Amino acid sequence: MHDNNNERLLLLTAAEADRRIGRVRQAMLDNHISELLISDNANVYYLTGRVFRGFVFISLDIDSPIYFVRRPASLTGSNVYAIRKVEEIPAFLSSLGLANPTRVALELDTTPYSAVSRVMAAFAMPELPTNGSPVMRAARSVKTQLECDEMRRSGAMQTLVYKNIPSLFREGMTDIELQIEIERELRLRGCLGQFRVSGPEMEIFMGNVLTGDNADAPSPYDFAMGGAGLNPSLPVGADGSLVRPGMPVMVDVNGNFTGHMTDMTRTYSYGPISDATALKAHALSIDICHAVAEAARPGVAAADLYNMAADMVKAARLEPYFMGHRQHAGFIGHGVGIEINEAPVIAPRSRDILAEGNAIALEPKFVIPGIGAVGIENTYLVTDDAAMECITLADEGITDLC
Amino acid sequence: MHDNNNERLLLLTAAEADRRIGRVRQAMLDNHISELLISDNANVYYLTGRVFRGFVFISLDIDSPIYFVRRPASLTGSNVYAIRKVEEIPAFLSSLGLANPTRVALELDTTPYSAVSRVMAAFAMPELPTNGSPVMRAARSVKTQLECDEMRRSGAMQTLVYKNIPSLFREGMTDIELQIEIERELRLRGCLGQFRVSGPEMEIFMGNVLTGDNADAPSPYDFAMGGAGLNPSLPVGADGSLVRPGMPVMVDVNGNFTGHMTDMTRTYSYGPISDATALKAHALSIDICHAVAEAARPGVAAADLYNMAADMVKAARLEPYFMGHRQHAGFIGHGVGIEINEAPVIAPRSRDILAEGNAIALEPKFVIPGIGAVGIENTYLVTDDAAMECITLADEGITDLC
Repeated sequence: MHDNNNERLLLLTAAEADRRIGRVRQAMLDNHISELLISDNANVYYLTGRVFRGFVFISLDIDSPIYFVRRPASLTGSNVYAIRKVEEIPAFLSSLGLANPTRVALELDTTPYSAVSRVMAAFAMPELPTNGSPVMRAARSVKTQLECDEMRRSGAMQTLVYKNIPSLFREGMTDIELQIEIERELRLRGCLGQFRVSGPEMEIFMGNVLTGDNADAPSPYDFAMGGAGLNPSLPVGADGSLVRPGMPVMVDVNGNFTGHMTDMTRTYSYGPISDATALKAHALSIDICHAVAEAARPGVAAADLYNMAADMVKAARLEPYFMGHRQHAGFIGHGVGIEINEAPVIAPRSRDILAEGNAIALEPKFVIPGIGAVGIENTYLVTDDAAMECITLADEGITDLC
Repeated sequence: MHDNNNERLLLLTAAEADRRIGRVRQAMLDNHISELLISDNANVYYLTGRVFRGFVFISLDIDSPIYFVRRPASLTGSNVYAIRKVEEIPAFLSSLGLANPTRVALELDTTPYSAVSRVMAAFAMPELPTNGSPVMRAARSVKTQLECDEMRRSGAMQTLVYKNIPSLFREGMTDIELQIEIERELRLRGCLGQFRVSGPEMEIFMGNVLTGDNADAPSPYDFAMGGAGLNPSLPVGADGSLVRPGMPVMVDVNGNFTGHMTDMTRTYSYGPISDATALKAHALSIDICHAVAEAARPGVAAADLYNMAADMVKAARLEPYFMGHRQHAGFIGHGVGIEINEAPVIAPRSRDILAEGNAIALEPKFVIPGIGAVGIENTYLVTDDAAMECITLADEGITDLC
């Protein structure tokens, strides 16, 4: 690969690329969009199997996408054109017999305003741009078989690491010291480290290890759990708390081994937890996961799954601790794949309807004041006619670190 | 901090907050901007000493900023108002006697188009928004004494880790195996892990360890060096190459220990490097750093510093290898602080003029085909009347890993 100066742009097989482009084209039809210009790294990776700097142009008028590449310039292939700047694209399209598409949809939910303005000027767009982000979000919410297989591989590797966590613990460790050993173990098993999140608001490093009352520290981010973090520049996660006997340690760390990530949380403890509420809440978290996984079929409303979970929590009188205590998250699950915050969202006002091939992380968790966080998270694939397939398979009970 | 339910929003001292706000107000005057609404995490951190979800409103008509907080809702203080959504802000401003500011500047270079549109609708802005990003970029390019001290602390910790790198190496290691041990060492010394980059284009995990020809693999990102990476979803850095005798190992890893990061690169080798071009290029990299550090004073043009370096490279006939070989980076240095890509930029067409308090990472590096990457990078502070102050102090020569 490094020996010659050129390399094929498309790393997906033609069949896999066709499947993904086909999903995007269907979503374009559903959204009344005829041209789409993609530059977001996650979407470029979805469409080609690699990240490059440039644009993928998709039109319902032509069969194949056109790839405009800025960096690296060494990429080649069918329909691949080197450009230095976006302003060159309209002339290219004209030379290919495509009229200057003044209504091309752009990724408005992730592209900075200035970058959108530049593309609009280049294309001489006369009016407000059309938002192509929902098209890509819809297309990517249903995984292909290859994507499912990549996620299963990530889940299997993440499971191996979670099973090994007790061997990484030493008495007297702080949350961050344990997290650092887990990070190393993840990396040695092939974790890429990168925790891809859509949009600029959410920031996280390799995930969270939460113990004791730090789990109740509110965070500015829309993650399910908080934590004060080590520094107010990144206020989430471990804060240097000592792991104390009888306290839960919640581990929710990076499962990105393949470019398609899984999301798994398990609760550990240093010696048995005696708090009855914590034990009850943890058992309920497992029950919710199993019940929702059983009920989640194609055609089911995501909001109904949230309400099923909320009803179970209400019946157990654990509402004050559900999805946080001082601050509550407004969802119990989310789509996952190339990024950690994909569709569908399992939330009370979600309008998402489940489809076969959705990949969903369910994380019904609890924060018990004075004790810490308990509960589990699994990543599931929505199947045609049975319960969701769980692809994060570490033991679900509270595992003793000793 | 976790015992009560409220916490003071402003983590900077009043004097430090005033200094930073003063810098922003001066940049607003320079840019003919009278109102500014900030929500980017890095800018919010600059202005308050913490990241929260919400907005900081600065107007030249009033003395103090107004803080609108969405999450966490527990933050309190003078001029702090809880909101659930941005649409509540105009009414708040009216109730404070401030006319609805229809020409408020927004961070257009980093805020997604959809988010800008939402703010524009909330404020009933009649025309195109004004870009406030250059204001914040200008303000942050000159560090306060406290920021300089935070960077010196990051530099000192990063230096300790770099000095310890030979002890982490074992014969038979790959680049990524060595990198994982360096990552652990960084984290154990307090590195926050997060590598803050402005904008959505550049992605990196904890930095790069490059050995052998992998250094010549072009990357899509605007970093100085490339590398194929472990996976095409993150094509930069270590690719699993064996560290071989006589080959350089370039280490350029995360120096974010305080929220203000330093950037340092050192070259190591497993046994002595015999390639004369590599040795000459490494020595020249050191010479360039020293010469540029000596010449860089307030009032000097950044482009002149680039040209000084380019002339030295030309005189040594090392242009084919400078800042890459198959693909060349177009700069030799960049501002650094809360983010890795700040102003000023040391590039041929940069219009930046140096000022006291600039923090600049200089990285004149070389890629020798068949050998690998050599050279160094230091972070410097621009001082009033002397050479720049180097704050990354590991030995600059090629250090043997054995």
